[in-house]
Amino acid sequence: MTAAAPLSPTARSTIRRGARRARTDRAELHAVLDAGLVGHLAVVLDGAPVVLPTGYGRRGETLYLHGSTGAATLRAAAGAPICFTVTHLDGVVYARSAFHHSMNYRCAVVHGTARPVTDAAERELALEALTEQLAPGSWTATRRPDRKELAATAVLALDLTEASLKVRTGPPGDDEDDLALPVWAGVLPLRTVVGEPEPCPLLPPDTEVPARVAGRRLSAGR
Amino acid sequence: MTAAAPLSPTARSTIRRGARRARTDRAELHAVLDAGLVGHLAVVLDGAPVVLPTGYGRRGETLYLHGSTGAATLRAAAGAPICFTVTHLDGVVYARSAFHHSMNYRCAVVHGTARPVTDAAERELALEALTEQLAPGSWTATRRPDRKELAATAVLALDLTEASLKVRTGPPGDDEDDLALPVWAGVLPLRTVVGEPEPCPLLPPDTEVPARVAGRRLSAGR
Repeated sequence: MTAAAPLSPTARSTIRRGARRARTDRAELHAVLDAGLVGHLAVVLDGAPVVLPTGYGRRGETLYLHGSTGAATLRAAAGAPICFTVTHLDGVVYARSAFHHSMNYRCAVVHGTARPVTDAAERELALEALTEQLAPGSWTATRRPDRKELAATAVLALDLTEASLKVRTGPPGDDEDDLALPVWAGVLPLRTVVGEPEPCPLLPPDTEVPARVAGRRLSAGR
Repeated sequence: MTAAAPLSPTARSTIRRGARRARTDRAELHAVLDAGLVGHLAVVLDGAPVVLPTGYGRRGETLYLHGSTGAATLRAAAGAPICFTVTHLDGVVYARSAFHHSMNYRCAVVHGTARPVTDAAERELALEALTEQLAPGSWTATRRPDRKELAATAVLALDLTEASLKVRTGPPGDDEDDLALPVWAGVLPLRTVVGEPEPCPLLPPDTEVPARVAGRRLSAGR
C-alpha cells in the first residue's frame, strides 16, 4: 500500500461508537504513532488476552516492536493476530452531568498478524526505528547492538493496513436541558513534559548533557 | 481477600522478564491504579485480541469499567477473560549502548473475568468511582445519571486478585565494558501536567472555575 491511501476500515477496524470521531487520514495516523513513546500490545495467551506496554518504531507503513526472545507475550505474538494501540490523553472533559464527562484524546489502533523479522538488514532498520522513537539521536550516538544482544532480541513487524484512528477534541457535549445548570464545564488540558536530565552516577563529573537530551521536546503530534 | 494480602502471582501474573522489578505490595498496586486516568482493556473478539483505552475506578479490591451498552468490546468482555493494564511513564532511560535504552515506568496488569454489574446500588457506586477517578469532585457537583443514561451504560467489575505490578526506576544498566564510552547516560524524567482550564463556550461569561478543576494536580502515585 502507499502512504497516500486513506484508512479503509475492515469490519473490526470500523469505529462504531462515536463514529464522528473517526479519522481516515493516513498522515494523521502516522503523526499520532510518531508522537508516542510506548503503545499497548495485546496478544492471546492460553485463550485469554494479555496487554503490556511496549516500545515501537515506524518506518513507512510498518510498525516494529521488539523485546526479549524470552518474553512470553513476544513469543505468543509471532505469527499470531495482535492488536497494538497508541493513546495520547489531551484533556479531561468536565461536563454539567456525570454522564457526559469524557476525555480528549488521540488513539490509534492497529490490527494484524505480527511478522517475525529475521532478515539482518531489516532487523537493523527496525532497531534503529525503535531506538530513535524512544530516544532521538541515540542510534548514532551510542554503541550499536552486538551479536549477543541481537540474538537476545525478538523483532516483530506489524503492517499498518488495518488501522483506525479516533480523536476527541473540544468542549463537553452536554444535553440541551443541562446547559442552564450552575455547573462549570470545560476542558482541563493534559500534557506530558520532560524534566531536568538526571545524569547516571557513573558518568565522569561535568559530562555535558548532549542536545539530543537537553533540547528534547515531546512532540504533541497535533 | 483483604487489602493487606500481598500480590500472590498465578502462572500468568508471574513476572518473568526483569523479575527484580516485580513488586508485591498491594498498597503500591492501589497507588499505581489510583494515579491513572485510563487503562488499556484487552478482550478477545472473534479469536483476535483487541485493546482500547478505557476509564476505570477502584473501590477496595474491585476495579470498575464502563462503557456504552453498544460497544462491541464491552459486550465481548462481559463474563469473559480480560486483561486491564495501567501504565505510567516516568522517564526515558538513555544508556551508553542502544541495547540498554529503556523507560522508567510503573505498570499494573490485572487478569480476570469481567463480571457484569447489574445491582442498582453497586452500579451507582461504580459510576461514582469512575467519575471521581476521572474528575475528582464531579460526582457531587454535577447532575447524576438519569434512568435513560443508566440504561445505556454497561458496568463491569474486575477483581484485583490476579494482578502484577512492575516498576523500573533509576539510571541505565549499562555493561561494565561500556562505562568508559564517551556517551552521556542518564534519565530524562517525564511528567503529565495540567494546563489552564478551557471553559465551555456555552457557559455564562465570568463563571468561576471551581477548585476541583483549578486546583487539580495529577497524582504522581510514587
